[in-house]
Amino acid sequence: MKHQSTDKLNRHAVVLLSGGLDSATALAEARARGFELYALTIRYGQRHEVEIDAAQRVAEALGVAQHVITDLDLRVFGGSALTDEIDVPKDTAPDNIGREIPVTYVPARNTIFLSLAMAWAETLRASDIFIGVNALDYSGYPDCRPEFIDAFERLAAVATKAGVEGKAPLEIHAPLIELTKSEIILRGIELGVDHGMTLSCYDPSTEGAACGRCDACVLRRKGFEEAGVPDPTRYQAGAEVM
Amino acid sequence: MKHQSTDKLNRHAVVLLSGGLDSATALAEARARGFELYALTIRYGQRHEVEIDAAQRVAEALGVAQHVITDLDLRVFGGSALTDEIDVPKDTAPDNIGREIPVTYVPARNTIFLSLAMAWAETLRASDIFIGVNALDYSGYPDCRPEFIDAFERLAAVATKAGVEGKAPLEIHAPLIELTKSEIILRGIELGVDHGMTLSCYDPSTEGAACGRCDACVLRRKGFEEAGVPDPTRYQAGAEVM
Repeated sequence: MKHQSTDKLNRHAVVLLSGGLDSATALAEARARGFELYALTIRYGQRHEVEIDAAQRVAEALGVAQHVITDLDLRVFGGSALTDEIDVPKDTAPDNIGREIPVTYVPARNTIFLSLAMAWAETLRASDIFIGVNALDYSGYPDCRPEFIDAFERLAAVATKAGVEGKAPLEIHAPLIELTKSEIILRGIELGVDHGMTLSCYDPSTEGAACGRCDACVLRRKGFEEAGVPDPTRYQAGAEVM
Repeated sequence: MKHQSTDKLNRHAVVLLSGGLDSATALAEARARGFELYALTIRYGQRHEVEIDAAQRVAEALGVAQHVITDLDLRVFGGSALTDEIDVPKDTAPDNIGREIPVTYVPARNTIFLSLAMAWAETLRASDIFIGVNALDYSGYPDCRPEFIDAFERLAAVATKAGVEGKAPLEIHAPLIELTKSEIILRGIELGVDHGMTLSCYDPSTEGAACGRCDACVLRRKGFEEAGVPDPTRYQAGAEVM
């Protein structure tokens, strides 16, 4: 998360892109900083397959050089409402979101995703990875915190060929980590993100309409409200605005 | 790599099992230390598919509680003779193996494999992972060194639910890291590993016979020679002993 600008091997950046609002904004940040964009989407057996479609729309709109979508079935390990048959929690009060690690937590997800990004970065000879994690208006996941990002950077310094050869160490950019959801939304608008293309819901309809009631929807709705901008999200019928 | 024995949530261990000699020995070490074994094999688009068969034989012989074989196509990122169309180097002199990072290096492989093991450990509530990396008679890969294992342990302490909740931190056991290949072979014999079941070759025949000439074969042959025990490896016709 330190900002080095010297000794980069090139100006490619690998950006983890889920199709949600946060990762779309991280992609736009990487573009704004002058990187050539290599978007990486991982289909990990999540319920919300329609997120992949959102990722494709966002990648195209922001002009990525390459978009890799790869499969990794995290369901073999079980353990999360996002990949298992456990029900996604609904209607949690916004202030209670993040107090405990919820059942939607996918074990080791960001560690796995960053290691895959690191593999691609290494073959691209890229020194930069962007990830849209967020430590404030997040859902209480351990792997969304600054100390996690820092630890991963220290790991990368000893894990990679470039690191061992003393070349440009890998830098993990988490540009949203200290922003609130409403700040992320406003920053996205500045950067030209079309939020209507993104999908944050943990339990969308097969057509990609948001449930409006899971933790991700609750935080996103509150974000648009606090930002004072219209919410372009397409909600399912019956998901009345709270 | 520190040896804690307190505060474990249970006595399950996730063991990364490739089907090679080293990982088979790591599995046997975990068994000898009294762990219930959860073997994890990742089919990552490597040329040596027959390694998976070896992993299954080894897992069964050592009595694992569960063996998960999961797919992850690392070929989407390119960059290695093990997953690409680059030729596997042959007939390198043993003393020259490991001097440079070779083309068989798969970017970020052990980081990815350990994060997958961490995901499973977290759902099993296991505090222990075994990996058969080896820093002496290795092939010069950055992610086979003690500093890599230590950095991963530090990452795990901030990346996981158990870590955040202050429960048993994840311990990464790398019991072979400071052994020579011949010491690993002798230790394996002590622990009851049937080396004839294992396959180390980077370029085996479709029937699972070893080429005898890639870096992995050269190191393995030399190991049996130095250990002074018969080499049970099935070599391809024409792979004469050097």
